[in-house]
Amino acid sequence: MALGSILKIFLPKDKVFYNLFEQVAKNLVQMSDMFGSAINERDLSKRDVILKRLEEMEHKNDEVTHEIFIQLGQNFITPLDREDIHALATSLDDIADYLWGASKRIVNYEVEDTYGALVSFAEIISKSVKAIAVAINSLRDMKNLEAITRSCVTVNSLENDGDDLLDNTMLKLFASQKSAVEIIKHKDIVQMLETVTDKCEDVANVIESIIIKYA
Amino acid sequence: MALGSILKIFLPKDKVFYNLFEQVAKNLVQMSDMFGSAINERDLSKRDVILKRLEEMEHKNDEVTHEIFIQLGQNFITPLDREDIHALATSLDDIADYLWGASKRIVNYEVEDTYGALVSFAEIISKSVKAIAVAINSLRDMKNLEAITRSCVTVNSLENDGDDLLDNTMLKLFASQKSAVEIIKHKDIVQMLETVTDKCEDVANVIESIIIKYA
Amino acid sequence: MALGSILKIFLPKDKVFYNLFEQVAKNLVQMSDMFGSAINERDLSKRDVILKRLEEMEHKNDEVTHEIFIQLGQNFITPLDREDIHALATSLDDIADYLWGASKRIVNYEVEDTYGALVSFAEIISKSVKAIAVAINSLRDMKNLEAITRSCVTVNSLENDGDDLLDNTMLKLFASQKSAVEIIKHKDIVQMLETVTDKCEDVANVIESIIIKYA
Repeated sequence: MALGSILKIFLPKDKVFYNLFEQVAKNLVQMSDMFGSAINERDLSKRDVILKRLEEMEHKNDEVTHEIFIQLGQNFITPLDREDIHALATSLDDIADYLWGASKRIVNYEVEDTYGALVSFAEIISKSVKAIAVAINSLRDMKNLEAITRSCVTVNSLENDGDDLLDNTMLKLFASQKSAVEIIKHKDIVQMLETVTDKCEDVANVIESIIIKYA
Repeated sequence: MALGSILKIFLPKDKVFYNLFEQVAKNLVQMSDMFGSAINERDLSKRDVILKRLEEMEHKNDEVTHEIFIQLGQNFITPLDREDIHALATSLDDIADYLWGASKRIVNYEVEDTYGALVSFAEIISKSVKAIAVAINSLRDMKNLEAITRSCVTVNSLENDGDDLLDNTMLKLFASQKSAVEIIKHKDIVQMLETVTDKCEDVANVIESIIIKYA
Repeated sequence: MALGSILKIFLPKDKVFYNLFEQVAKNLVQMSDMFGSAINERDLSKRDVILKRLEEMEHKNDEVTHEIFIQLGQNFITPLDREDIHALATSLDDIADYLWGASKRIVNYEVEDTYGALVSFAEIISKSVKAIAVAINSLRDMKNLEAITRSCVTVNSLENDGDDLLDNTMLKLFASQKSAVEIIKHKDIVQMLETVTDKCEDVANVIESIIIKYA
């Protein structure tokens, strides 16, 4: 580890990984924006058309993630530790996976946003993904470590908001929803959206562990 | 990491780990075959007798996995990176755990395969575990990297099939099953079977990250 | 890795990490004791007052965990491998998170301990956390490896007990509880308590992988 860090000082950094991570971050921002506009659409059939479009964005994300792994195999020298690149790519990919998973279930289960929970989750996820994009875009030069740290703190705080939102939504569901089947459907979806905020926190943790080494 | 890779070229490889991983792979194939023959058994009491036999196979698997960890403690030089051996053993063990967990719930909840979902999951899991066995058996000499890569791609594709199967099964359940309690039981089981395919994908990812280093 | 291990023999060990880990272990023992006394309280409103106090203990734990990460950034030489310190801190933190998560749900869902499952889980978790504390307290000098190993075996065995307890509780729930909504609530809580025992096992696995390197 120490030896690797010393070597890195003398070796040119490879820009390809930063380019790819920035592409993933940009894609995630677009996905969360699209998710938000879908959830704010009152016409449910229009909503579902938008939600279904997240699938192709998730596939696009898979391809960039795959490209990161291919580059990892071809580049003997990497600008970050190999395991950090792997962990960052995997955790970013999880965000796209779970956001698409939740979107699919909203369409499949024909769920309405009775408690406003979906709108609130869309806002939390959008803020969280944008904070991640700021952090990712600052990784390249590592000059603005304070901005990266601030973004990670924001993501952690939004994960707490997601936790509280899940708790409150479940309380409302149990208090007002008579149908156990409807509870099962809504629970499945809001838990999955809360998992999206967990996955955002995982990304923030990976980024924090990266900048710890370079600070 | 680089230093470790260079050292490995000059040191004799230790065969014990490959032997143990091949044993685990063989055991997993047997478990998935036994699961398949149980699920295809129409007599539910006969089915449950077969399903319960998966417990001893899961215990047997635990023992081999434990042996891998003991060997990891005793061998200063390992043929693969220590963390890769650990990750591979752990993720393979997860497959056995979740397959036994799902089997136990099928017995406990006295669930019938109303939608044919269990038969379909048994097929997907069997194919996935067999692809993993091919990849594991090719790890020893690393000569046929293409076969390993192809197996990993197969596992990834089968995980997608598992995802779709879960979605379709839930749609059928919500459309036709009136009893919320029955939905809870079936959901628990099919989610666990889908998790088996996720765990197979985790194994494929570990294997891919291993061959990236040796390619 | 090998180089790192050799270096460590010649370098003074840093005590700060052991101090922090021992603080976390002590805090977890207090949390599990408090959880146990809450669950054994027959007056549900008194029970809930105690359960809510776990939140501040969870926050306190977050702070110590955060301090570990800060120290990890400031100490170039660490007494254990950096990734082991990170994995140990993260997995210990998960125990506190899930125990507080389950406590919160017991309060929110106004659940009674109909089947005695909560009392039994409190006992298992308390034993498991205490075994972890023994192992953590022995990490500092690595003299009593046998005590560490024995503690880890205990934690693994208690995780199996947690698994069986979950299964039996679900069987009782499905057999006697008519309300699907009540099943959903109880299932959520007992699954989360079983996850606490899983997280304890994760900690034991991290500790075992650490002592493998130092044995």
